[in-house]
Amino acid sequence: MTIKLYCFGESGNAYKAALALELSGLDWAPVYVDFFNGETRGEAFRKINAQGEAPTMVDGDLTLSQSGVIQQYITDKTGKFGGTAEEKYEVLRWVLWDNHKLSSQVGMTRFLMNFLPEDKRPADVITFMQGRLKAAFTTLNAHLEGREWMVGDSITNADLSCCSYLFYPEPFGFDRADWPHIDAWLTRVSDLPGWKHPYDLMPGNPSDRA
Amino acid sequence: MTIKLYCFGESGNAYKAALALELSGLDWAPVYVDFFNGETRGEAFRKINAQGEAPTMVDGDLTLSQSGVIQQYITDKTGKFGGTAEEKYEVLRWVLWDNHKLSSQVGMTRFLMNFLPEDKRPADVITFMQGRLKAAFTTLNAHLEGREWMVGDSITNADLSCCSYLFYPEPFGFDRADWPHIDAWLTRVSDLPGWKHPYDLMPGNPSDRA
Repeated sequence: MTIKLYCFGESGNAYKAALALELSGLDWAPVYVDFFNGETRGEAFRKINAQGEAPTMVDGDLTLSQSGVIQQYITDKTGKFGGTAEEKYEVLRWVLWDNHKLSSQVGMTRFLMNFLPEDKRPADVITFMQGRLKAAFTTLNAHLEGREWMVGDSITNADLSCCSYLFYPEPFGFDRADWPHIDAWLTRVSDLPGWKHPYDLMPGNPSDRA
Repeated sequence: MTIKLYCFGESGNAYKAALALELSGLDWAPVYVDFFNGETRGEAFRKINAQGEAPTMVDGDLTLSQSGVIQQYITDKTGKFGGTAEEKYEVLRWVLWDNHKLSSQVGMTRFLMNFLPEDKRPADVITFMQGRLKAAFTTLNAHLEGREWMVGDSITNADLSCCSYLFYPEPFGFDRADWPHIDAWLTRVSDLPGWKHPYDLMPGNPSDRA
Protein backbone atom coordinates (compact mmCIF):
# COMPACT_ATOMS: atom_id res chain seq x y z
CA MET A 1 0.00 0.00 0.00
CA THR A 2 1.28 3.45 -0.89
CA ILE A 3 2.29 5.55 2.12
CA LYS A 4 0.58 8.96 2.10
CA LEU A 5 2.38 12.06 3.32
CA TYR A 6 0.22 15.11 3.97
CA CYS A 7 2.57 17.95 3.21
CA PHE A 8 3.24 21.17 1.32
CA GLY A 9 6.36 22.27 -0.49
CA GLU A 10 7.18 25.27 1.67
CA SER A 11 7.44 23.17 4.84
CA GLY A 12 10.97 22.24 5.78
CA ASN A 13 9.56 19.89 8.40
CA ALA A 14 7.54 18.09 5.72
CA TYR A 15 10.65 17.98 3.53
CA LYS A 16 12.52 16.04 6.25
CA ALA A 17 9.92 13.27 6.01
CA ALA A 18 9.46 13.48 2.24
CA LEU A 19 13.21 13.28 1.56
CA ALA A 20 13.59 10.31 3.91
CA LEU A 21 10.70 8.54 2.17
CA GLU A 22 12.08 9.29 -1.28
CA LEU A 23 15.65 8.21 -0.53
CA SER A 24 14.46 5.08 1.33
CA GLY A 25 12.86 3.68 -1.82
CA LEU A 26 9.51 3.13 -0.10
CA ASP A 27 6.34 3.49 -2.14
CA TRP A 28 4.90 6.87 -1.13
CA ALA A 29 2.93 9.79 -2.50
CA PRO A 30 2.50 13.36 -1.28
CA VAL A 31 -0.99 14.65 -0.51
CA TYR A 32 -1.12 18.42 -0.74
CA VAL A 33 -2.31 20.33 2.32
CA ASP A 34 -3.13 23.96 1.59
CA PHE A 35 -1.54 25.42 4.72
CA PHE A 36 -1.59 29.01 3.49
CA ASN A 37 -5.36 28.89 3.02
CA GLY A 38 -5.96 27.36 6.44
CA GLU A 39 -6.46 23.70 5.50
CA THR A 40 -4.35 22.42 8.43
CA ARG A 41 -6.63 24.35 10.78
CA GLY A 42 -9.85 23.03 9.20
CA GLU A 43 -12.13 20.32 10.52
CA ALA A 44 -11.42 17.78 7.77
CA PHE A 45 -7.67 17.83 8.41
CA ARG A 46 -8.15 17.81 12.19
CA LYS A 47 -9.69 14.36 11.77
CA ILE A 48 -6.39 13.18 10.31
CA ASN A 49 -4.26 15.09 12.83
CA ALA A 50 -5.91 16.66 15.89
CA GLN A 51 -3.14 19.25 16.24
CA GLY A 52 -3.24 20.21 12.56
CA GLU A 53 0.37 19.20 12.00
CA ALA A 54 2.03 18.84 8.63
CA PRO A 55 3.71 16.56 7.83
CA THR A 56 1.38 13.74 8.80
CA MET A 57 2.06 10.26 7.42
CA VAL A 58 -0.60 7.60 6.92
CA ASP A 59 0.53 4.01 6.27
CA GLY A 60 -2.54 1.77 6.36
CA ASP A 61 -3.98 2.02 9.88
CA LEU A 62 -1.01 3.91 11.25
CA THR A 63 -0.97 7.71 11.40
CA LEU A 64 2.19 9.48 12.55
CA SER A 65 3.25 13.10 12.88
CA GLN A 66 6.45 14.99 13.73
CA SER A 67 9.09 14.59 11.06
CA GLY A 68 11.51 12.89 13.48
CA VAL A 69 8.90 10.24 14.27
CA ILE A 70 8.21 9.60 10.59
CA GLN A 71 11.97 9.30 10.02
CA GLN A 72 12.23 6.78 12.88
CA TYR A 73 9.38 4.77 11.36
CA ILE A 74 11.15 4.69 8.00
CA THR A 75 14.32 3.53 9.75
CA ASP A 76 12.44 0.80 11.62
CA LYS A 77 10.78 -0.34 8.39
CA THR A 78 13.79 -0.23 6.06
CA GLY A 79 16.88 -0.34 8.27
CA LYS A 80 18.09 2.87 6.60
CA PHE A 81 19.26 6.20 8.05
CA GLY A 82 19.50 5.07 11.68
CA GLY A 83 23.27 4.68 11.77
CA THR A 84 24.90 1.75 13.53
CA ALA A 85 23.66 0.49 16.91
CA GLU A 86 26.43 2.51 18.61
CA GLU A 87 25.42 5.63 16.70
CA LYS A 88 21.73 5.68 17.58
CA TYR A 89 22.03 8.13 20.47
CA GLU A 90 24.20 10.46 18.41
CA VAL A 91 21.66 10.40 15.56
CA LEU A 92 18.81 11.18 17.95
CA ARG A 93 20.92 13.89 19.54
CA TRP A 94 21.20 15.83 16.30
CA VAL A 95 17.55 15.29 15.37
CA LEU A 96 16.62 16.82 18.74
CA TRP A 97 19.19 19.59 18.37
CA ASP A 98 17.73 20.39 14.96
CA ASN A 99 14.22 20.60 16.43
CA HIS A 100 15.44 22.66 19.37
CA LYS A 101 18.00 25.01 17.91
CA LEU A 102 17.98 24.93 14.11
CA SER A 103 14.74 24.15 12.26
CA SER A 104 12.40 25.64 14.84
CA GLN A 105 14.19 28.97 14.59
CA VAL A 106 14.93 28.90 10.85
CA GLY A 107 11.34 27.92 10.09
CA MET A 108 9.91 30.77 12.13
CA THR A 109 12.36 33.35 10.76
CA ARG A 110 11.80 32.29 7.15
CA PHE A 111 8.04 32.52 7.69
CA LEU A 112 8.29 36.02 9.18
CA MET A 113 10.61 37.26 6.43
CA ASN A 114 8.83 35.75 3.44
CA PHE A 115 5.30 34.50 4.07
CA LEU A 116 3.83 37.29 6.19
CA PRO A 117 2.49 40.36 4.37
CA GLU A 118 5.29 42.91 4.14
CA ASP A 119 3.62 45.37 6.51
CA LYS A 120 3.25 42.67 9.19
CA ARG A 121 6.87 41.54 9.36
CA PRO A 122 8.25 42.24 12.86
CA ALA A 123 11.64 43.81 12.22
CA ASP A 124 12.89 43.60 15.83
CA VAL A 125 12.02 39.92 16.09
CA ILE A 126 13.70 39.16 12.77
CA THR A 127 16.86 41.00 13.85
CA PHE A 128 16.89 39.16 17.16
CA MET A 129 16.43 35.79 15.44
CA GLN A 130 19.43 36.44 13.18
CA GLY A 131 21.65 36.21 16.24
CA ARG A 132 20.09 32.92 17.31
CA LEU A 133 20.45 31.49 13.81
CA LYS A 134 24.07 32.53 13.56
CA ALA A 135 24.80 30.58 16.75
CA ALA A 136 23.08 27.49 15.30
CA PHE A 137 24.92 27.76 11.96
CA THR A 138 28.21 28.14 13.87
CA THR A 139 27.54 24.92 15.79
CA LEU A 140 26.58 23.04 12.63
CA ASN A 141 29.51 24.32 10.58
CA ALA A 142 32.00 23.44 13.34
CA HIS A 143 30.55 19.95 13.73
CA LEU A 144 30.82 19.29 9.98
CA GLU A 145 34.47 20.35 9.77
CA GLY A 146 36.39 17.19 8.90
CA ARG A 147 33.22 15.11 8.62
CA GLU A 148 31.35 13.94 5.54
CA TRP A 149 28.12 13.26 7.43
CA MET A 150 26.67 14.42 10.73
CA VAL A 151 27.15 10.99 12.36
CA GLY A 152 29.34 8.12 11.18
CA ASP A 153 30.18 7.26 7.59
CA SER A 154 26.89 7.61 5.77
CA ILE A 155 23.73 9.64 5.69
CA THR A 156 21.41 9.32 8.69
CA ASN A 157 18.29 11.00 10.02
CA ALA A 158 20.63 13.56 11.60
CA ASP A 159 21.55 14.80 8.11
CA LEU A 160 17.99 14.46 6.78
CA SER A 161 16.74 16.58 9.69
CA CYS A 162 19.40 19.30 9.81
CA CYS A 163 19.70 19.89 6.06
CA SER A 164 16.06 20.44 5.27
CA TYR A 165 15.44 24.16 5.66
CA LEU A 166 18.88 24.99 4.27
CA PHE A 167 17.88 24.02 0.71
CA TYR A 168 15.16 26.68 0.46
CA PRO A 169 15.83 29.72 -1.70
CA GLU A 170 13.90 32.32 0.31
CA PRO A 171 16.11 34.65 2.40
CA PHE A 172 16.23 33.99 6.13
CA GLY A 173 19.79 34.97 6.96
CA PHE A 174 21.72 32.01 5.58
CA ASP A 175 24.27 32.26 2.78
CA ARG A 176 26.04 28.99 2.00
CA ALA A 177 29.20 30.89 1.05
CA ASP A 178 29.59 31.99 4.69
CA TRP A 179 29.63 28.41 6.01
CA PRO A 180 32.04 26.26 3.97
CA HIS A 181 31.55 22.98 5.86
CA ILE A 182 27.76 23.29 5.72
CA ASP A 183 28.04 24.19 2.04
CA ALA A 184 30.15 21.12 1.16
CA TRP A 185 27.83 18.85 3.16
CA LEU A 186 24.69 20.21 1.46
CA THR A 187 26.36 19.44 -1.87
CA ARG A 188 27.02 15.88 -0.69
CA VAL A 189 23.34 15.54 0.21
CA SER A 190 22.06 16.97 -3.08
CA ASP A 191 24.50 14.76 -5.03
CA LEU A 192 22.84 11.62 -3.64
CA PRO A 193 21.08 9.55 -6.32
CA GLY A 194 17.37 10.35 -6.19
CA TRP A 195 17.72 13.62 -4.24
CA LYS A 196 15.13 16.22 -5.11
CA HIS A 197 14.70 19.85 -4.15
CA PRO A 198 11.72 20.45 -1.79
CA TYR A 199 9.76 22.28 -4.50
CA ASP A 200 10.25 19.31 -6.85
CA LEU A 201 9.46 16.66 -4.25
CA MET A 202 6.25 18.11 -2.78
CA PRO A 203 3.33 20.09 -4.25
CA GLY A 204 3.02 23.76 -3.40
CA ASN A 205 5.54 26.58 -3.64
CA PRO A 206 5.54 30.37 -3.33
CA SER A 207 5.05 30.95 -7.06
CA ASP A 208 1.57 29.38 -6.73
CA ARG A 209 0.56 32.39 -4.67
CA ALA A 210 2.47 35.05 -6.59
CA MET B 1 29.17 3.54 39.14
CA THR B 2 27.32 6.76 39.86
CA ILE B 3 25.98 8.50 36.76
CA LYS B 4 27.07 12.15 36.59
CA LEU B 5 24.77 14.83 35.20
CA TYR B 6 26.39 18.16 34.37
CA CYS B 7 23.59 20.61 35.01
CA PHE B 8 22.37 23.77 36.72
CA GLY B 9 19.10 24.39 38.49
CA GLU B 10 17.79 27.09 36.18
CA SER B 11 17.91 24.82 33.12
CA GLY B 12 14.59 23.25 32.26
CA ASN B 13 16.39 21.05 29.76
CA ALA B 14 18.68 19.76 32.51
CA TYR B 15 15.62 19.22 34.71
CA LYS B 16 14.12 16.87 32.12
CA ALA B 17 17.16 14.59 32.47
CA ALA B 18 17.56 15.07 36.25
CA LEU B 19 13.90 14.27 36.95
CA ALA B 20 14.04 11.16 34.75
CA LEU B 21 17.19 10.00 36.57
CA GLU B 22 15.68 10.69 40.00
CA LEU B 23 12.35 8.98 39.31
CA SER B 24 14.06 6.01 37.61
CA GLY B 25 15.86 5.07 40.82
CA LEU B 26 19.26 5.00 39.11
CA ASP B 27 22.32 6.01 41.13
CA TRP B 28 23.16 9.52 39.94
CA ALA B 29 24.60 12.81 41.14
CA PRO B 30 24.42 16.33 39.73
CA VAL B 31 27.64 18.16 38.88
CA TYR B 32 27.12 21.90 38.91
CA VAL B 33 27.99 23.82 35.75
CA ASP B 34 28.17 27.57 36.29
CA PHE B 35 26.37 28.57 33.09
CA PHE B 36 25.81 32.18 34.13
CA ASN B 37 29.53 32.73 34.60
CA GLY B 38 30.39 31.16 31.27
CA GLU B 39 31.51 27.68 32.38
CA THR B 40 29.67 25.92 29.54
CA ARG B 41 31.60 28.08 27.08
CA GLY B 42 34.98 27.40 28.72
CA GLU B 43 37.71 25.06 27.54
CA ALA B 44 37.42 22.58 30.41
CA PHE B 45 33.72 21.96 29.79
CA ARG B 46 34.22 21.83 26.01
CA LYS B 47 36.34 18.73 26.61
CA ILE B 48 33.27 17.07 28.14
CA ASN B 49 30.86 18.45 25.53
CA ALA B 50 32.23 20.12 22.39
CA GLN B 51 29.05 22.18 21.91
CA GLY B 52 28.97 23.33 25.53
CA GLU B 53 25.58 21.75 26.15
CA ALA B 54 23.98 21.27 29.55
CA PRO B 55 22.72 18.78 30.46
CA THR B 56 25.51 16.36 29.63
CA MET B 57 25.42 12.89 31.19
CA VAL B 58 28.49 10.77 31.83
CA ASP B 59 28.01 7.08 32.66
CA GLY B 60 31.40 5.40 32.71
CA ASP B 61 32.79 5.68 29.16
CA LEU B 62 29.53 6.97 27.70
CA THR B 63 28.85 10.70 27.36
CA LEU B 64 25.44 11.84 26.12
CA SER B 65 23.79 15.20 25.62
CA GLN B 66 20.33 16.48 24.67
CA SER B 67 17.77 15.77 27.37
CA GLY B 68 15.69 13.55 25.05
CA VAL B 69 18.72 11.35 24.39
CA ILE B 70 19.48 11.02 28.09
CA GLN B 71 15.83 10.11 28.70
CA GLN B 72 16.02 7.45 25.98
CA TYR B 73 19.18 6.04 27.58
CA ILE B 74 17.42 5.82 30.97
CA THR B 75 14.50 4.06 29.28
CA ASP B 76 16.84 1.58 27.56
CA LYS B 77 18.65 0.94 30.84
CA THR B 78 15.65 0.64 33.17
CA GLY B 79 12.62 -0.11 30.99
CA LYS B 80 10.88 2.93 32.48
CA PHE B 81 9.16 5.93 30.87
CA GLY B 82 9.15 4.59 27.30
CA GLY B 83 5.48 3.55 27.27
CA THR B 84 4.37 0.30 25.66
CA ALA B 85 5.84 -0.89 22.33
CA GLU B 86 2.78 0.53 20.55
CA GLU B 87 3.23 3.88 22.28
CA LYS B 88 6.87 4.48 21.39
CA TYR B 89 6.16 6.72 18.38
CA GLU B 90 3.61 8.74 20.33
CA VAL B 91 6.11 9.26 23.15
CA LEU B 92 8.80 10.39 20.71
CA ARG B 93 6.26 12.62 18.99
CA TRP B 94 5.64 14.65 22.14
CA VAL B 95 9.32 14.78 23.06
CA LEU B 96 9.99 16.27 19.62
CA TRP B 97 6.98 18.58 19.86
CA ASP B 98 8.28 19.80 23.20
CA ASN B 99 11.71 20.52 21.71
CA HIS B 100 10.18 22.18 18.68
CA LYS B 101 7.24 24.14 20.03
CA LEU B 102 7.26 24.27 23.82
CA SER B 103 10.58 24.14 25.70
CA SER B 104 12.63 25.87 23.02
CA GLN B 105 10.30 28.86 23.12
CA VAL B 106 9.57 28.86 26.85
CA GLY B 107 13.26 28.54 27.65
CA MET B 108 14.20 31.49 25.46
CA THR B 109 11.33 33.67 26.70
CA ARG B 110 12.06 32.92 30.36
CA PHE B 111 15.72 33.76 29.79
CA LEU B 112 14.88 37.07 28.13
CA MET B 113 12.37 38.05 30.83
CA ASN B 114 14.38 37.02 33.88
CA PHE B 115 18.06 36.36 33.29
CA LEU B 116 19.04 39.24 31.02
CA PRO B 117 19.82 42.58 32.67
CA GLU B 118 16.62 44.64 32.82
CA ASP B 119 17.85 47.22 30.31
CA LYS B 120 18.70 44.49 27.77
CA ARG B 121 15.32 42.75 27.65
CA PRO B 122 13.87 43.03 24.13
CA ALA B 123 10.23 44.03 24.70
CA ASP B 124 9.07 43.41 21.12
CA VAL B 125 10.56 39.91 21.04
CA ILE B 126 9.02 39.05 24.41
CA THR B 127 5.59 40.28 23.25
CA PHE B 128 5.89 38.28 20.03
CA MET B 129 6.92 35.14 21.92
CA GLN B 130 3.84 35.38 24.17
CA GLY B 131 1.70 34.61 21.14
CA ARG B 132 3.81 31.59 20.23
CA LEU B 133 3.70 30.30 23.80
CA LYS B 134 -0.05 30.72 24.02
CA ALA B 135 -0.42 28.51 20.94
CA ALA B 136 1.79 25.85 22.54
CA PHE B 137 -0.09 25.97 25.87
CA THR B 138 -3.38 25.69 23.96
CA THR B 139 -2.17 22.52 22.20
CA LEU B 140 -0.89 21.00 25.45
CA ASN B 141 -4.01 21.87 27.45
CA ALA B 142 -6.31 20.44 24.75
CA HIS B 143 -4.27 17.23 24.52
CA LEU B 144 -4.46 16.73 28.31
CA GLU B 145 -8.23 17.16 28.50
CA GLY B 146 -9.59 13.77 29.55
CA ARG B 147 -6.10 12.29 29.89
CA GLU B 148 -4.08 11.61 33.02
CA TRP B 149 -0.77 11.40 31.18
CA MET B 150 0.48 12.61 27.79
CA VAL B 151 0.60 9.08 26.34
CA GLY B 152 -1.08 5.94 27.69
CA ASP B 153 -1.78 5.14 31.32
CA SER B 154 1.39 6.14 33.11
CA ILE B 155 4.17 8.69 33.07
CA THR B 156 6.52 8.61 30.07
CA ASN B 157 9.31 10.71 28.64
CA ALA B 158 6.57 12.75 26.95
CA ASP B 159 5.45 14.00 30.37
CA LEU B 160 9.00 14.35 31.69
CA SER B 161 9.88 16.49 28.67
CA CYS B 162 6.79 18.70 28.42
CA CYS B 163 6.39 19.43 32.14
CA SER B 164 9.88 20.62 32.88
CA TYR B 165 9.85 24.38 32.28
CA LEU B 166 6.32 24.67 33.65
CA PHE B 167 7.46 24.08 37.25
CA TYR B 168 9.68 27.16 37.34
CA PRO B 169 8.48 30.15 39.36
CA GLU B 170 9.94 32.96 37.21
CA PRO B 171 7.39 34.75 35.02
CA PHE B 172 7.40 33.89 31.32
CA GLY B 173 3.72 34.20 30.44
CA PHE B 174 2.33 31.04 32.00
CA ASP B 175 -0.24 30.98 34.79
CA ARG B 176 -1.43 27.50 35.76
CA ALA B 177 -4.87 28.90 36.61
CA ASP B 178 -5.43 29.73 32.92
CA TRP B 179 -4.86 26.12 31.80
CA PRO B 180 -6.87 23.70 33.95
CA HIS B 181 -5.82 20.46 32.24
CA ILE B 182 -2.14 21.41 32.35
CA ASP B 183 -2.58 22.44 35.98
CA ALA B 184 -4.12 19.11 37.02
CA TRP B 185 -1.46 17.17 35.14
CA LEU B 186 1.41 19.13 36.74
CA THR B 187 -0.13 18.27 40.12
CA ARG B 188 -0.17 14.59 39.12
CA VAL B 189 3.53 14.83 38.24
CA SER B 190 4.52 16.64 41.43
CA ASP B 191 2.50 14.15 43.51
CA LEU B 192 4.67 11.27 42.28
CA PRO B 193 6.75 9.66 45.06
CA GLY B 194 10.27 11.09 44.86
CA TRP B 195 9.38 14.13 42.75
CA LYS B 196 11.48 17.19 43.47
CA HIS B 197 11.29 20.78 42.31
CA PRO B 198 14.12 21.74 39.92
CA TYR B 199 15.73 24.03 42.50
CA ASP B 200 15.74 21.16 45.02
CA LEU B 201 16.99 18.55 42.56
CA MET B 202 19.91 20.45 41.00
CA PRO B 203 22.43 22.96 42.34
CA GLY B 204 22.12 26.60 41.30
CA ASN B 205 19.16 28.95 41.42
CA PRO B 206 18.52 32.67 40.91
CA SER B 207 18.89 33.50 44.60
CA ASP B 208 22.58 32.54 44.32
CA ARG B 209 23.05 35.59 42.13
CA ALA B 210 20.71 37.98 43.94
